[in-house]
Amino acid sequence: MTTLEDVLALVAIDSVSTNESALAKYVYEHLIVNSDLEVERIGDNVIARSVGLHSFRVLVAGHLDTVPGDVTASVIEGDVLHGLGACDMKGSLAGMIDLALDKTPRPVEVTWVFYAREEISRSQSGLLEIAELRPDLLVADVAVLAEPTGGRVEAGCQGTLRIKITLGGARAHTARPFTGRNAIHRLGDLLSFVALYQPREVQLEGVTYVEQLQAVSVEGGVAPNVVPDVASCVLNHRVAPDRTLDQAVQWLRDFLGELLDEQDVVEVKDWAPSASPELMNPHLTRLVEISGETPQAKVGWTDVATFREFGIPATNFGAGDPLRAHRSDEYVTTDEVNRFASVLGEWLRSTPNTSGTSI
Amino acid sequence: MTTLEDVLALVAIDSVSTNESALAKYVYEHLIVNSDLEVERIGDNVIARSVGLHSFRVLVAGHLDTVPGDVTASVIEGDVLHGLGACDMKGSLAGMIDLALDKTPRPVEVTWVFYAREEISRSQSGLLEIAELRPDLLVADVAVLAEPTGGRVEAGCQGTLRIKITLGGARAHTARPFTGRNAIHRLGDLLSFVALYQPREVQLEGVTYVEQLQAVSVEGGVAPNVVPDVASCVLNHRVAPDRTLDQAVQWLRDFLGELLDEQDVVEVKDWAPSASPELMNPHLTRLVEISGETPQAKVGWTDVATFREFGIPATNFGAGDPLRAHRSDEYVTTDEVNRFASVLGEWLRSTPNTSGTSI
Repeated sequence: MTTLEDVLALVAIDSVSTNESALAKYVYEHLIVNSDLEVERIGDNVIARSVGLHSFRVLVAGHLDTVPGDVTASVIEGDVLHGLGACDMKGSLAGMIDLALDKTPRPVEVTWVFYAREEISRSQSGLLEIAELRPDLLVADVAVLAEPTGGRVEAGCQGTLRIKITLGGARAHTARPFTGRNAIHRLGDLLSFVALYQPREVQLEGVTYVEQLQAVSVEGGVAPNVVPDVASCVLNHRVAPDRTLDQAVQWLRDFLGELLDEQDVVEVKDWAPSASPELMNPHLTRLVEISGETPQAKVGWTDVATFREFGIPATNFGAGDPLRAHRSDEYVTTDEVNRFASVLGEWLRSTPNTSGTSI
Repeated sequence: MTTLEDVLALVAIDSVSTNESALAKYVYEHLIVNSDLEVERIGDNVIARSVGLHSFRVLVAGHLDTVPGDVTASVIEGDVLHGLGACDMKGSLAGMIDLALDKTPRPVEVTWVFYAREEISRSQSGLLEIAELRPDLLVADVAVLAEPTGGRVEAGCQGTLRIKITLGGARAHTARPFTGRNAIHRLGDLLSFVALYQPREVQLEGVTYVEQLQAVSVEGGVAPNVVPDVASCVLNHRVAPDRTLDQAVQWLRDFLGELLDEQDVVEVKDWAPSASPELMNPHLTRLVEISGETPQAKVGWTDVATFREFGIPATNFGAGDPLRAHRSDEYVTTDEVNRFASVLGEWLRSTPNTSGTSI
């Protein structure tokens, strides 16, 4: 049984993104004692693989890093552990370590991946670092990403698009604005319209994705006395798995319609692709059954999309309420951690159905 | 008669703000040859005063500096001089120099002020520098500021208010924005409303001031995946001379009404006061008559407001179309320069009415 003390041991080690070295060392030293595992450290990532003879391999992954915060304020109060990363995602990591050390025979091989730098720019991701340096370590038939999901399967993930819209205008003196065209006033109309956006809901394989559109930054202005001829905003669009990047951009252009002029510029700044729910996959269906919870759609973006890029069916399943992630008051409970470890352990002990046509 | 070659001599000397030294030297050396004048240089400002026995003193002022631009591209084409500062305001300066060198007796004393750094932050103004170091040099009964006005009196000036409005909100993950409140979306509504502003027109002493309200900058945003809880804009409000700063701020608060919440912050960043038209002043009325043009209200801000602070009735009157100022294609014509010098010269030769009750 995983205890809150086990989780606290992880929470007590500062692992704010790019500072995962000490925690990677801790995990490595704990896993290396299990002689059934081949444990490797790649940068600040740790990969532990059982190397038996089973033909079916399951990968379980979690990130070592946390968002910035107070790393000294962790405390156990009864059945609750408060602390930076308690929910996202050191509760799951503690369960993963316990299961990796569990020498009970399983009908599958398991790869445990503890990776760095998930909470910052994707280009710095430890998971991509492993994929570049040692792709052989990531070969698997199915994957579980132990992000906090409240102990239920959160299927797939939505893509996330950041798009910059730069509006033009014509400069003028602010005492005679009628000779110009105020780009910031134009931006106001665009932002007001974005605020009226009604989320599109998409049902896929029984779960419902809810898209979103939010302005996340604005800038503009020329000088204190000048009607500005340029203003821009960045919109973040959460895109359901049924749309590609091109479709999402085209939808946005159509949505904004005549608010955009020919002189305006629409730039894709960033795109992280979506992942389909994979709820037809028999292995992941079995995980849903064992969890005893109705699956939901993952509305945020996770590395489930990265596994999809690797060609590995994957889903999100972890300890802790996802709404608590990235909050200064995040916490995880004994029950959440044990429920996660118990369901995951049972799933890993169950015989995979490798005869299904969907494999 | 002032020639375009006289203006070109000034335009050819780079005097972009804070770089007026060479032009100040040029003006000083030209004026010092007139033994009727006491010429002083204070920093990069030049003040030339006739020191006869007349009790009435007129002050004529113009700034030496220009906005940034291409200082090498000046050219005379027929009766037109193109070049940086041709319109704002070296055409007027050339006329002022000619009149300062004119030894024809006048019934008034004249103070000629050529000052630095008008086109940048008011706190750096050369006019304020003179007022601090040698206020005695600025004593006068009436003043003309030779900013470009198209050869007509442009009376008074509007105040200019810069006000920063910071809107609050509540952070959330952009995949779950319904748990937050997007400050940038709120800003969109505010900017859209500002764009609908209908200018207030105010008749004062026969001229019409037209107020304006323009957003001049925006900023906001927290992180690419975060519903922002803060966004701000700076508004520039041009305020007619019938309103004080407090009245203008109160009007703006009332105008924005329920778009502002209790958590939002309204800050006055900058205020340059207005100046009343002074069209009841008999000396300035005479200038209107001599110009032969209907006076208009000055909708921008000028140092006429500074003279008003000094207690000196003042008005704007200069060569060149004010709509050409600060444009890369600014120019001035022979006719504009001569018309300005001719009207100003006639006014300075006319006998002041010092018996009026309004003095």
